[in-house]
Parts: sequence; C-alpha cells; structure tokens
Amino acid sequence: MNREQLVGLIKRKRSFLCVGLDSEIDKIPTHLLGEEDPVFEFNLQIINATIDYAVAYKPNLAFYESRGLDGMKSLHRTMDYLANFSEQCFSIADAKRGDIGNTSTQYARAVFDSKASGFNFDAITVAPYMGEDSVSPFLMFKNKWVVLLALTSNKGAFDFQLTEDAGGERLFAKVLRTSQNWGTPENIMYVVGATRAEMLAEVREIVPDHFLLVPGVGAQGGSLSEVARYGMNNDCGLLVNASRSIIFASKNDDFATMAGSEALTIQLEMENLLSEKGIT
Amino acid sequence: MNREQLVGLIKRKRSFLCVGLDSEIDKIPTHLLGEEDPVFEFNLQIINATIDYAVAYKPNLAFYESRGLDGMKSLHRTMDYLANFSEQCFSIADAKRGDIGNTSTQYARAVFDSKASGFNFDAITVAPYMGEDSVSPFLMFKNKWVVLLALTSNKGAFDFQLTEDAGGERLFAKVLRTSQNWGTPENIMYVVGATRAEMLAEVREIVPDHFLLVPGVGAQGGSLSEVARYGMNNDCGLLVNASRSIIFASKNDDFATMAGSEALTIQLEMENLLSEKGIT
Repeated sequence: MNREQLVGLIKRKRSFLCVGLDSEIDKIPTHLLGEEDPVFEFNLQIINATIDYAVAYKPNLAFYESRGLDGMKSLHRTMDYLANFSEQCFSIADAKRGDIGNTSTQYARAVFDSKASGFNFDAITVAPYMGEDSVSPFLMFKNKWVVLLALTSNKGAFDFQLTEDAGGERLFAKVLRTSQNWGTPENIMYVVGATRAEMLAEVREIVPDHFLLVPGVGAQGGSLSEVARYGMNNDCGLLVNASRSIIFASKNDDFATMAGSEALTIQLEMENLLSEKGIT
Repeated sequence: MNREQLVGLIKRKRSFLCVGLDSEIDKIPTHLLGEEDPVFEFNLQIINATIDYAVAYKPNLAFYESRGLDGMKSLHRTMDYLANFSEQCFSIADAKRGDIGNTSTQYARAVFDSKASGFNFDAITVAPYMGEDSVSPFLMFKNKWVVLLALTSNKGAFDFQLTEDAGGERLFAKVLRTSQNWGTPENIMYVVGATRAEMLAEVREIVPDHFLLVPGVGAQGGSLSEVARYGMNNDCGLLVNASRSIIFASKNDDFATMAGSEALTIQLEMENLLSEKGIT
C-alpha cells in the first residue's frame, strides 16, 4: 500500500487506529481453546469486529514465534484472512528486525515477498542500531514500508535513545535525522512512543512529513489527544496503536463485541481529532 | 550450556570456531534440491563434516524465515539434529531480537523454551537499542545466554555505534559498560566485528571477562590472529564465526568435505593461538 492509499483510508474511515494483534494464547478467552487454531479464531473475530474502525493491524511476531510452528501457522492463517481486506487496511509485521545487508534482504523477503515466505505485509518494524545497510534492503520493495524504531515507549528507552552526543543531539534525534536520507516519507515511518507525547513536537521538527507509529496509548497510559496535538500533520501522519486494551477488553464470550466497542470509542475520538485538524 | 561447559568444550576441541548456518537455499549445491528438505540435508552434512572442529553453530534466522513455514521446518529439523550433539556444541539463534519487556519474554520462549516453541538454543543475539527491559527477560532463563550487539562488522556500524556522547564515550562502549549491570559474564556475550580487530583491545578494557562473538573472519575479511591478539582472555573468551567461507567452500558434490577441510584449517590455527596463550 502506498502513502496516498493509506491517507485515503484514514480519511474514509475517519480513523488512524492500528490494532495490535498481540494474541498471547494464555490470554485469549478459554472457550476458544477447543478450536483447531484458537489464536487464528481469536484474530478472525477481532478483525471482523474492528475492521470498520481500524486502518491497520500489527501482529507482534514474538507472540507467534513463541509457539513455534503452530504459532507461525496461526500467523499465516491470520494474514491470509486479512488479505480479504487488503484495500481496507494496512498491515505491519512488528518484528524489530535488522541485520547486515544480505541478511536484511532475507528478512525483507520473509515479510514482503509472498512467493518466498507466504507473507505480504505492507510494513515491518526495524531496529536502527546497525545503521543504513541494515535498513535499506527493506526499502527496495515497492509500496512496502520500514517503520524504524526512534523513541520507544518502554523504560529502557532511557538507556541509549536519550543519550546526547558531543553536539547535543540525542540518539533518537540522530536516528530520525540520519535515516531520512535512506528513504522517503513514502517508505519510512518512525516508532515514537506515546508515553512521551510532548517529545512528539521535537520529533515533528525533524520529520514533519513522515508517518509516525505511536504505541503506548491505552494499556501503557498515553493520551490520544496529546499525541494528535503534538504529532498530527496535514496528512494525519499518525498510526496510533492499541493492543491489549482492545483485544483483551473482555475475556468472556463477548470479547469480540467488547473489542469492537473499544475500537469504536477510539475511532470516534480520532474522528473528532481529524475534524479539528481539518482533515476530511 | 553454562560457561564452565563452554570453556571445557573449547579446551577439549582446541577450537573456538562457530559455524554460521546461513544456509540460503539459492546457494546450496544443486544436487541437493531433489531432497525432501534440501536445506536440512545440507545442514546435516555440514554439521557432520565440521562437528570435530567447531564448538558452536549459529543459524541466522533470516535465511529460514525468508522461506516461510518450509524454512522454519528446515530450522527445526536442523536444531533437532544438532540436539544429538548437545554436549559437543553451543548453539546460537542469530535473530537480533529485542522488544519491550513482556514481548521479549515471548521471544525468549521462542528460542529457549522447547516445550513452547520446539527450540532449545543456548543463546540468542539481541539488539540493545531498546535498553535494559528489552534484554533482561532473556536473562531469566537458566544456562541461556544473550549475545548483545555492541560493535558490528558492517558499514552501517559507523552510523550510530561510533557516535561519541557528550562525555566522549562512543555508543558501543556505553552499551558494553551499561549492559554489564544487566547480567554477568555467565549469561551475556557481546558481538564485536573482526573487521575492526584493533578495537577489540578497547572492548577488552571495558569487558575483560565476557565472551565475545566475533563475526567477519573469512568472507568479510577479518584476521584470526589479530582477533586473538586483541580479544583473547584467559578463558579464551572468544567465539569466532565463519559462515560462507565454510559452508559454501564448494558448490559441488564435495561441499561437505570441503567445508570440513576449511573448518579444520581454522581449527588448527585456533589450536596454535590457544597454545600460545597457554590455554590447555
């Protein structure tokens, strides 16, 4: 999916919600455990219940890899099902990959090249530590995106991401500034955590045009209106992720209904924020 | 495998060679392509040919993930086969993972918890960008190791890893210094590229006791004697990886013989280096 299509989707659905499919088998409703593939059945019902309110889905691969081949089968089934909605949603492999050049090419094929791997994600999260040649192989794929880690929402972000260099620039800012030369706002987004919404203003000074993927709203405590206030640009430029607060809104038979209801609540708030910004 | 066992292995085999099983299907000998699982068959023959000369094996997961479920099956078969030699070699999942705490726990289960995922690796490579809480979940597993990226062997290492902070400390050095408090030399190793062997001296000043995983010898051009000169400690403290120079030493029927011969050549050089250091 290209940028124009993504922006069109946001305007059409009046939403910039990304649903994180962090579908840990120990947390899904127990009545699903009798299904042949409980995690796929859970995801299918979550997708059906939220597809009108969400513009993106983001499975974190850890929750699938932890179950070995069975988990990867659940993920393949989920993405095959999501392919039915390929015009209606953007998909992000939350994988936080990154390796030397020829190896990153393999990781890119693993998520982007359906003939090779069976997956056809629109985007992948990538860690910047290994620099340009670990990122650029992902950018060789047309209409595919890198979502580069810049400022994450966890406590460990303080360990290195906020380190100031000799010129007073913090590492996450250097990542933003430097990596702009590796691609364009048409194929690079950045992860910026919502738990530091005020820092979005600083991020926007460096990358005014890029999309930002913002985790940390909901279970991690970030505020949606603050994120929009500091982070929204004229194309919206935001995908705000919520995972547990939506998919685990209820642990009972009504989990899908409750997930849909939670997604609708967020979508309505997003609709207001888009209108306030004059994005129609 | 714990540190004492690893050091014992190095002394017994007179080797600190790690064989990188970067078994790209497009590069394996064509006569194997008729096998049910060509990559597994390739790995099996490589392991058989090198097991006397190598103390560790390191599949890079990218080369398996790029083939989807088929690739993951090849990796499972490979690791199941390698389990026959569990007393004779250390195993590293070269995955370069790292995510927020509860997600890193899932990644740890994906490689360490055989009941959950089917994999029982001894170690995993982890990227440090997200800080302590992205690394520490891996350290909760007994006799399992994190191999943390410090200074990598690719060009992109210059983008951020060598950035000096306000106090004159470079990022890779800060990673080494800071992360020492997250674990011990019994459960943390570091990746330090051989293409900058002279920097191993600087690394050793910060982490005198830790094992270092050194890629970049062979195809990437690093020198083994330089690595030993600057990087070896009294427990050896080195695992030197070679991938393509061994596994793709020949593309013909004799690939396994040639891989064994290449591994033996390196082992003999390592034996000399261990003797010179008085490690017996």
